[in-house]
This record gives sequence, C-alpha cells and structure tokens, in this order.
Amino acid sequence: LQSRLPSVGTTIFTVMSALATEKGAVNLGQGFPDFDCDPSLVDAVTAAMKNGLNQYPPMAGIPALREAIAAKIASIYDHRYDAGTEITITAGATQALLTAILCTVHPGDEVLIIEPVYDSYVPAIELAGGKPVFVQMEVGPNGYSIPWDKVNAAVTPRTRLLMINSPHNPTGSVLRESDMRALSDIVHNTNIAIVSDEVYEHMVYDGARHESVCRYPDLAARSFVVSSFGKTYHVTGWKIGYVAAPAHLSAEFRKVHQFNVFTVNTPVQHGIARYMADPAPYLDLPAFYQRKRDLFRDGLKTSRFTLLPSDGTYFQCVDYSAISDMPEVDFAKWLTSEIGVAAIPVSAFYNRPKDSCIVRFCFAKKDETLRIALEKLARV
Amino acid sequence: LQSRLPSVGTTIFTVMSALATEKGAVNLGQGFPDFDCDPSLVDAVTAAMKNGLNQYPPMAGIPALREAIAAKIASIYDHRYDAGTEITITAGATQALLTAILCTVHPGDEVLIIEPVYDSYVPAIELAGGKPVFVQMEVGPNGYSIPWDKVNAAVTPRTRLLMINSPHNPTGSVLRESDMRALSDIVHNTNIAIVSDEVYEHMVYDGARHESVCRYPDLAARSFVVSSFGKTYHVTGWKIGYVAAPAHLSAEFRKVHQFNVFTVNTPVQHGIARYMADPAPYLDLPAFYQRKRDLFRDGLKTSRFTLLPSDGTYFQCVDYSAISDMPEVDFAKWLTSEIGVAAIPVSAFYNRPKDSCIVRFCFAKKDETLRIALEKLARV
Ligand SMILES: CSCCC(=O)C(=O)O
Ligand SMILES: CSCCC(=O)C(=O)O
Repeated sequence: LQSRLPSVGTTIFTVMSALATEKGAVNLGQGFPDFDCDPSLVDAVTAAMKNGLNQYPPMAGIPALREAIAAKIASIYDHRYDAGTEITITAGATQALLTAILCTVHPGDEVLIIEPVYDSYVPAIELAGGKPVFVQMEVGPNGYSIPWDKVNAAVTPRTRLLMINSPHNPTGSVLRESDMRALSDIVHNTNIAIVSDEVYEHMVYDGARHESVCRYPDLAARSFVVSSFGKTYHVTGWKIGYVAAPAHLSAEFRKVHQFNVFTVNTPVQHGIARYMADPAPYLDLPAFYQRKRDLFRDGLKTSRFTLLPSDGTYFQCVDYSAISDMPEVDFAKWLTSEIGVAAIPVSAFYNRPKDSCIVRFCFAKKDETLRIALEKLARV
Repeated sequence: LQSRLPSVGTTIFTVMSALATEKGAVNLGQGFPDFDCDPSLVDAVTAAMKNGLNQYPPMAGIPALREAIAAKIASIYDHRYDAGTEITITAGATQALLTAILCTVHPGDEVLIIEPVYDSYVPAIELAGGKPVFVQMEVGPNGYSIPWDKVNAAVTPRTRLLMINSPHNPTGSVLRESDMRALSDIVHNTNIAIVSDEVYEHMVYDGARHESVCRYPDLAARSFVVSSFGKTYHVTGWKIGYVAAPAHLSAEFRKVHQFNVFTVNTPVQHGIARYMADPAPYLDLPAFYQRKRDLFRDGLKTSRFTLLPSDGTYFQCVDYSAISDMPEVDFAKWLTSEIGVAAIPVSAFYNRPKDSCIVRFCFAKKDETLRIALEKLARV
C-alpha cells in the first residue's frame, strides 16, 4: 500500500502527552484543561439522552443549536447568519477544517497558510490534492506578526484558499484591525475563499476584542468561520464545533460533510443548545483565562525563560535561548523527562526544519497545577 | 466556487424524512429505530461524564473500548486483532468509510463497488480522486446476488479497492460462504484492499451466520472492517463506530483519521466500553429484529406488494410492479403523501437511472408503528 500521507507520523501532542504520562510530568503540552466542565452542561446532555434524543439529528445539526450559534454571532460580532442554510455543526474543529478544504480545493489548487501552523492543515490540503504555500510569521520582541506584503506576494492565479487562525495556536498572537484591513486588500477582487480558524475566539486578553472575520462583511462573504465548543466549554473530548459560512459556501461544505461524518452526536447538540441560552460562560472566559495567564507569566518572570506575548489562546510561548541551544524537540523532551513539565516545541508547527529555541506551554490548568509546574520550571 | 461534488444534492434519506414529517406519514424510510436504547447504556455514558471523562481521549480511541471490540470479534468471528494497533474508533461508519477510502485511494485509482450502493461511497471515492467502477447485483425471485464473474471481469491493474457490504443496505441480502470464496479467488495474488461495511453484522436471520471478512484470514489480511454502534445499540444519533484492519492498513487509516476528526467523544466511548462487557444486547439482536421482520412480512402477504427476501439488515424491499409503473422516486413520494407511509426508492442507490419498481421499508420500529403502517399499506 502506497501511503497517501507518507511524511505523517504520530502527532507531537500524542507523543508529548505519552511522555508526560510515562515520566509523571505535569502536562502543559497538549492543549486541554485539567479541570472539569460546568456540571450543568453534563446535566443538559444527560437530560437529552434520558428524553430519548438518541437518533439521527438533521444532517447540518439540530435547529436549536444552529439558532443559538447564529444569535451568539449576531450579538458579539454583529453579523447575521441564516441558521437554516449558513451554520453547520461539525464533529470538532479539525473535521470542520478538513471538510472546508475538501469542498473547495481542487487538485493542483494552491492554499496559502501562515507558519507556524496547526498540524492538521497541511495533510488536509494534501488529501484534497492541493498545494500548500507557506508564509512564515515574523517574530520579534513584541511577538509574532504576519508580514502581509509577503502574503500578498505569494498569491497566484491558482490560489484557491487562504487560511488564518486568530487567536493563534501556538503563538498566542491575535490579529488586529489593521491585519484584517490588510487581509481585505489582498483578497479584494480575487475569488480566494478564506478559512478562519477561530476556535480560541473567547480567549482574548487585556480588553482587546476578537477580530472575527464575521465583523468584516467583505471577508465574511468569502469565509468559512470555524469554532469549537470543546475549547469554549472545557470539553475537548466531546468533539463538537461548527462552521459558519455564507449559503453558497455552506452548501458545498454540507455536500462533503454529509459524506464525511453525516452528522454529529444528538444529545450533545441538545445539551449545548440549552446551555448556550446563558451567555455568561463564554463572556466570562477572557477574565477566567487572563488570570491563569498572568499567574503563569508572573511565576516565570524571575526564571531564565524569556516570555513572549500571549494576547489570546490558552498558550504561552517562551524563548529558552538563555538556557540552552538544544533543538526544540530535544529541549521539550528534556523538560518533560528531567524537569517534569511537558511542553510543545514550536518547530512542530513548521513544515521545514525551523528552530528558534521556543516552546509552548498550555495554561488551561488548575491554579494548583500551574504552581507546581512553576516550581519545577524555577529549577531550570 | 467550482463544486468538488457537482452532482450531489440532499440525500434521499433527508428528503424522505422531511416529507414524512410534513405529511404526518409513518416514517419507514430513513434507517433508524423509533424506540429508545437500553437505559443502562445512557447511565453508563452519564457516569463517565459525571466522573469528569470529558477531555481528549487517545487519538485511536480509549483502550478499554478497543479491547472490548477485539474480544467481541475474537469470540464471534474467531479472529484476533491487536487492540493497540489494529482497531480505531470512528465518528460513525460513514466517517470510517471516507477515511478508509482517503487513506488508500490515489488519484486515478479504480474502486470496485457493487450496486445498489449506499449513497456515501461514490462521493467519497470522488473526493479521493478515485474512479468508481460499478458492477450491478442481479435480482431474481430469490432476491439480489452478486455476479462474481462480472466483478472479476471488472478488475484492472488500477483497481486499488473493492467495497462490499453485508448484510446489504438496501436489499437485505447477505453474503454466503460461497460468495466469500469467490471474493477470495478474485483478490488472490492482487494487492487490492477491501472495505467491508458490516454495520448490520448483528442482524442476520433464520439461523444463518454473518460472513464477516474476519472469518477468512486471507481476506482479513487486506480488509478494513467497518461497524457501527449506532445500529447495534439503537443509538444512530451517537455517531460512533469502528474500523478493524491489520496493522499496516490501520497505520494508514490513523494518519488520515487524526487529521479528519482526530478522535471521538470520550464519555460515549467509556459508556459503550462498559456496556459491551455484557454480550447479550448484540447476541439477542437477530431474534429481536427477526420478529419484527416477520411481523412486517406477514402483514404484507395479502397485499399487492411482492416481498423480496430480507435475510439481514432491518430493511425489507418490495416490488410494486403489480400496483403501479410509476418511477420509484414518484412512487415513494406518493406512498408517503397519499398512503401515509414513507419508503426509500432503491433507485437512489444507483448512480445511473435504474428503475425496477422496488422500494425499501425500514422495520426497526415499534410493533405498534409497524401495525399502523401495515394497515395503511393494506389500502394500496
Ligand atoms: C487535537 S490534540 C491538540 C490540541 C491542541 O489543539 C493543541 O494542543 O494545539
Ligand atoms: C445516514 S442516514 C441513512 C441511514 C441509513 O443507513 C439508511 O437509511 O440507509
């Protein structure tokens, strides 16, 4: 059997989580909380199961959940999607990304992506027969930023899709209004579609607003907006997210979706729909995670790690060049095995060798977990 | 935007379910039960959620569930899969099918499929860049059967995959030992892989045994075996199934799986793993559904429908040529609107126009529902 994805191995998240377990390390690697979700969310799903809501839902998702999402987007980003034709429930954001790529990218089409990039993007593009075209973020003392002139220079007549991700995994950077204007200028008068991965949309700090593409009508008109209930409601294992896109893009998305997963767990959809009636859980999220970010950053201030900005997501990148010149993968493994704190090498988010002495920590952890990790990291 | 799947519309299942709802018809169309699952299965999932098992499970699924599946396959089909490397939990059988196709089929490869065929197969092959090659089942008074000589004649050096499905949707036919031998002979000395869709494995009637490819070591060694907990445990809305395949095929499957859905709902996995400890629910299934099949068939004996055999699945096909010469889609719509019983036209499972005056009913319904449907059908 000839592999369709010859260069793919086990994801770095699985590798580091396994090593953390083996070594008994505090796992600040893979991005998931070590605290539980709101019990009332569990109760809402349980009630749906006990009410017998256990058979196929509609292919695109139950209307109540799609309407709740449309209402949320309208209230936060002031953009109206039609719940009937423009919102589709997915089995998590990863499935949404693959499906959006499969429904738009024809063999030979180019897809513009910004590195560092989440590890599913490139294999998904390859499965569609597309060609990934890379532009690297620039990194300086103020953190990571996108060189839009280079993005513009990378556009060709074959560019079919441009993928962005803000708040950005792994760098914790967020796009600002000026970025969105630059993006608008680039795609203006082209027929490039956009995949906007906004799974950390409710984790933007220091009072900044999340620059969803939904806020920009010209961008929204050509975008698949991807989000994740796993991240927002502390249930990464529930595997549920959604895509919002204008009707003509949603129609193509659904063609592939119905032959990929067809539809998504019914009782979980009902439970989340009911839970979304209260906006407090997601409105409170920036304050909740900003406290954790600050706790973690404060604890590292006296260490020999250099802190990069973390303006969004639940990730904190650090530069360790003052400590070691090991390659990032080796340093992350050493940190896990010898110091007892697992991290993710940022090099894992690049497709060609790239080592900048930067690793990523996840601070979506109990304060106590963060304190234990900080004590260990202080020894470095 | 140029469509990747230009010929795909809304699935017939969605169309007929919507029409059934609109007309208040008894829905014997889309294949799902109108009764609920075992409450103890709901309790097992609830317990997992309440125990905080709500974050990412391992990519391939939780070990307990993979081990329960391996144990089941060993006990029923006498074939041993390694739970660590050969079983992968999927977000339902449809996702398993697409993933198996995406990980094996290269652009230009041919995939042999038998018509009538479940509606996801062809679009999945097209998304992979493959070319579907069709062989039609033959239908006679003894029902549907596969002309293996024609399958053999359709094999070319480009044939990469051969897809089978037994018990068969929509025809209710099942493969016998002689079919399996014919299949073995065809693939012997080729490197054709097999996708064996066995989602109705626990619904085989009249004392016959299910001829899983797992029973045949030469076939198992080249097969992706797909099954579905949704069908087996009356929870079609939970969207969980699995693929069993030898390690070299499972490794390729997982490469695509991890970038498609990455993994599957954690508490549902734990709940099913616990529930599988008792084999009674699936061992009792043939008797449970055979009773319903017999009730439904008995009720139609005096009607003007001609009953085809239903040796497996929860579907019953009938020939209505004594009643009408309407095309199947029109007849199914007429039956839904005017008689009040929704059915699925078998022509929807063919890729070129094919009308044989046959429609499919689903008998996975409460006895009472079946009786009401029979009363209405008696009026035809
Ligand atoms: C799908 S496992 C990876 C989780 C995650 O989003 C991350 O750690 O970056
Ligand atoms: C995925 S909806 C279709 C359900 C089914 O398997 C059928 O009715 O054939």
